Amino acid sequence: MANPLVDDRLVDLVLWEVVEAERLTALERFRDHSRETFELYVAACRRVAREVLFPSYRELDEAGARLVEGRVVLHPKMRELYAQLRELGVISATRPEAMGGAALPVTIATMAHVYLQAGNLAPAAMCGLTTGAAHLVEAFGDEALRETFARPMYDGRWAGTMALTEPQAGSSLADLTTRATPAGDGTYRIDGAKIFISGGDQDVTENVVHLTLARIDGAPAGTRGISLFAVPRLRPEGGALVDNDVEVSGLIHKIGWRALPSLALAYGSRGDCRGWLVGEPHRGLAQMFQMMNEARLMIGVQGAATASVAYHESLAYARERTQGRALGEADPASPPVPLIAHADVRRMLLRQKAIVDGSLCLAAVTARFADEAAHGDARAQLLLDLLTPVTKSFPAERGYEANTLALQIHGGYGYSSEYLPEAWLRDQKLNSIHEGTTGIQGLDLLGRKAVAKGGAALFAFSAAVREDLEKSALDVRGVRAALDRIGALTAALGARGLAGDLEGMLAHSADYLEACSILVIAWMHVKLTNATPADIPFASGLRQSARYWLATEVPRVEHLAALCEANERSYLDMRDDWFG
Amino acid sequence: MANPLVDDRLVDLVLWEVVEAERLTALERFRDHSRETFELYVAACRRVAREVLFPSYRELDEAGARLVEGRVVLHPKMRELYAQLRELGVISATRPEAMGGAALPVTIATMAHVYLQAGNLAPAAMCGLTTGAAHLVEAFGDEALRETFARPMYDGRWAGTMALTEPQAGSSLADLTTRATPAGDGTYRIDGAKIFISGGDQDVTENVVHLTLARIDGAPAGTRGISLFAVPRLRPEGGALVDNDVEVSGLIHKIGWRALPSLALAYGSRGDCRGWLVGEPHRGLAQMFQMMNEARLMIGVQGAATASVAYHESLAYARERTQGRALGEADPASPPVPLIAHADVRRMLLRQKAIVDGSLCLAAVTARFADEAAHGDARAQLLLDLLTPVTKSFPAERGYEANTLALQIHGGYGYSSEYLPEAWLRDQKLNSIHEGTTGIQGLDLLGRKAVAKGGAALFAFSAAVREDLEKSALDVRGVRAALDRIGALTAALGARGLAGDLEGMLAHSADYLEACSILVIAWMHVKLTNATPADIPFASGLRQSARYWLATEVPRVEHLAALCEANERSYLDMRDDWFG
Repeated sequence: MANPLVDDRLVDLVLWEVVEAERLTALERFRDHSRETFELYVAACRRVAREVLFPSYRELDEAGARLVEGRVVLHPKMRELYAQLRELGVISATRPEAMGGAALPVTIATMAHVYLQAGNLAPAAMCGLTTGAAHLVEAFGDEALRETFARPMYDGRWAGTMALTEPQAGSSLADLTTRATPAGDGTYRIDGAKIFISGGDQDVTENVVHLTLARIDGAPAGTRGISLFAVPRLRPEGGALVDNDVEVSGLIHKIGWRALPSLALAYGSRGDCRGWLVGEPHRGLAQMFQMMNEARLMIGVQGAATASVAYHESLAYARERTQGRALGEADPASPPVPLIAHADVRRMLLRQKAIVDGSLCLAAVTARFADEAAHGDARAQLLLDLLTPVTKSFPAERGYEANTLALQIHGGYGYSSEYLPEAWLRDQKLNSIHEGTTGIQGLDLLGRKAVAKGGAALFAFSAAVREDLEKSALDVRGVRAALDRIGALTAALGARGLAGDLEGMLAHSADYLEACSILVIAWMHVKLTNATPADIPFASGLRQSARYWLATEVPRVEHLAALCEANERSYLDMRDDWFG
Repeated sequence: MANPLVDDRLVDLVLWEVVEAERLTALERFRDHSRETFELYVAACRRVAREVLFPSYRELDEAGARLVEGRVVLHPKMRELYAQLRELGVISATRPEAMGGAALPVTIATMAHVYLQAGNLAPAAMCGLTTGAAHLVEAFGDEALRETFARPMYDGRWAGTMALTEPQAGSSLADLTTRATPAGDGTYRIDGAKIFISGGDQDVTENVVHLTLARIDGAPAGTRGISLFAVPRLRPEGGALVDNDVEVSGLIHKIGWRALPSLALAYGSRGDCRGWLVGEPHRGLAQMFQMMNEARLMIGVQGAATASVAYHESLAYARERTQGRALGEADPASPPVPLIAHADVRRMLLRQKAIVDGSLCLAAVTARFADEAAHGDARAQLLLDLLTPVTKSFPAERGYEANTLALQIHGGYGYSSEYLPEAWLRDQKLNSIHEGTTGIQGLDLLGRKAVAKGGAALFAFSAAVREDLEKSALDVRGVRAALDRIGALTAALGARGLAGDLEGMLAHSADYLEACSILVIAWMHVKLTNATPADIPFASGLRQSARYWLATEVPRVEHLAALCEANERSYLDMRDDWFG
């Protein structure tokens, strides 16, 4: 049986029962939609993911991309796959009709994207990047910029990238040094270097637009002096597209995502690179956070999708492969049992399932808040902001653990490239690094989101969780205790921050992030089981998955919270020369 | 500064203070040795690891091995590296002089091997396999077999392998079907197929001897009908070496260990494969456990070594790479700080260090028990047996986590094959699979070792831990509580087993293994800090590493024990069709 990539019943349950996506049609932007149009889009993505994307996955992973005479040559299949996704309207799915889009909710697009990412992440991610880049121009550019840059990107003729990182600055965007000098004609001469630019060049679309952060001459130092520019590979000039002096200076040999290379780019090495200012000068970083936050949700989706496809692969293997006998069976002539008959294999499968179910549900819940926030719902905005670091990092970290278990279930075969789990394990590892490492997500959650507006986000979160706990048929006492514990802990840590003790507040942000993530995923399991319709095997599986999480993970919150509260000092006090 | 691979001060502390290796010279077999001869061997391995092995590591990883016309062609450097290790006497280091060895303690050889494995695991592992194979012949073969097979292996002219796994049987050795038919001349005709045979063919030594498990015609089914054979690739016949009909039927593309390929072998496809019975008929599996247990200790060493070299790489990177600013530093003109200045990076480094320090110390402690056990010390044998599953699995599982953190500290660079951490991460993953998966180690620990001889092993363990706790200047109340908890838990689980409830005893063996591993590593940190000489930075680092482990990991034992005790049922009750 072919790998289903993602469980349709799970996606349907999440979309129509947990987040009640149909109710989004009450919002102005989605009023022309109906459950039927939503379902049509999800079904089309499902089909393309299974029939078109997945069959090419291994080939693309193996062949990767090449750098030939300064240009990136993708695997020839990428052209075909990208064309199918363009045809499906994936790039502009969530954008208004005026921009050529289908005005679909982010919720719908996100859950449809799970299939595409699980099927073959390189073409899917190329679309996602292009959407985010075009959306920046749409949101902050004027009419001319929208027509020049956003429209061909939404249309899929051009692609887009996110060009933030520089070799010397890494995650520290305050240290960006790429320069923008007014050229006198309204454009800017761009001069600098970027690194880790996914899809920074390719031979599939006729042009690429790099949404680039740079400093206008004389701008203040730090993050308040950064502006946003659209910097195309080929610039429109006199009705034609001419070279815009953005060179590929290197191809990074990533260990996964091999069909969509990450590049080092040099801007203006011949002094002839032009950029178009998008939005206001010096507001570039704040504006870029629109794309960054969209990308963080998308990474949560990638994490969930990559764990999901590997889970299904290991489930099929555990059912099919026989090995050993049941406990206590002493007769060597008795037939061997399938792997799934062994308790520890079921543990590894259920752990994967609990992570996948929770991650997928969280992606939908966060997307739902994004849709409501885009319509001015302040509470949804608070919850979106609060959940984003968890949605970004949990599927990355625990999805990686799930991918490791999928490999382990395959035993020696899993350790070989003749089988697929090792490839997904490689793909997954990027998700804890790009668009803000897990460490940065922890600081964002505790240092900004959880304490924002006097704790209003956490208050809204707490109320939402309690509402679902009230309805639960599970034993949720542990979840309630964890919720109380995290509420009190956040108040205590926030008070330290207010008193100026930033280290006392933030030093255990990794433990805080993990504790919150365990709680949030427990909430997701409560939501899933609350919404479970009837006593069918699928529902029993969800309940078992929830029980597993509540029994094995939720009790860990207390220990993690205690470490935060005590500000346990082992690594804080550790000095450089003590490391060896 | 070059990567030191392993911290010399740590190895010295472990060898001379923690396990007091010098006292081994009191034992009959080691009486010609002294601390000086021990140190000479360790120093020689250190030097070769740093100057010869490590500089070739990446090249061997990248080029791997190839299958050319049915024969395996290793990277040309392997010949040179293997020759150096042969010259060093690595293969026969622990064997008596009568077999051409140096009669060194396993303790010394093990800690010297840490450097070789950290430097370049493929040539080091090739030696380790040959030692284990030759030792089987030495221990169970007669004089003629020893001269024919063991001597050329110890000498390094021939190599050895461990040929257990078959395609249809995987970890279930009871289901082996390779046949051995008496040929009438004292040898046996061998007919069957093996898979995952590391070093199963190569072009570095003139011959390879496969220590092979097979069933003699008419043997009982199951594990009690398995015999051990020496099956060479070329067999000695009339003073020459002639082809022995062992064919390479496939090369497995492992994701790591790429310079030492794993093969599928076909025995006797032309009906002309001969094997020499080693030891008694039907006692093959019990005999093979000598090599298996040696291999399990060696895998612990590999896990520790692979985590160690990556730890040192990420430590150097964290010191050198600057990024961002200290918490609360608002001035963008202030210079960026090194990564190591960030609390969360120090957390990732200290976590790696705690895992590496604990794993290395455990390898030495277990090796020390092996030396004493070989001299008839019954208590040491019990402790060796008890610690082996932990020594095999902890460095594999937590070492993998440490390797993941080393990659994470490198950020986007870590995700590329231009940097080394990704290669060690791939190498490390095998250690949770080969020579008994982690799941099998858990069953072995709880189902056999912890309850052996009415709990005598656990009693000896408990006494040894208590003795070290008495001397500790750390706050070890948590360790004492964990020790008590595991003692009581083991008794309770053992009682279930005695009452016939195997599922109630063993279903949480993964949690039991993890709880015991946390405790054992806490014990190692207590030993290390007890042995720490003076208030030098290195000693402060060890104390901090111990504090980290005691504060963050030891409190988890209670939760894991509670899951075992309650026999938490989520995955036990999970039915096949509920998984999706």
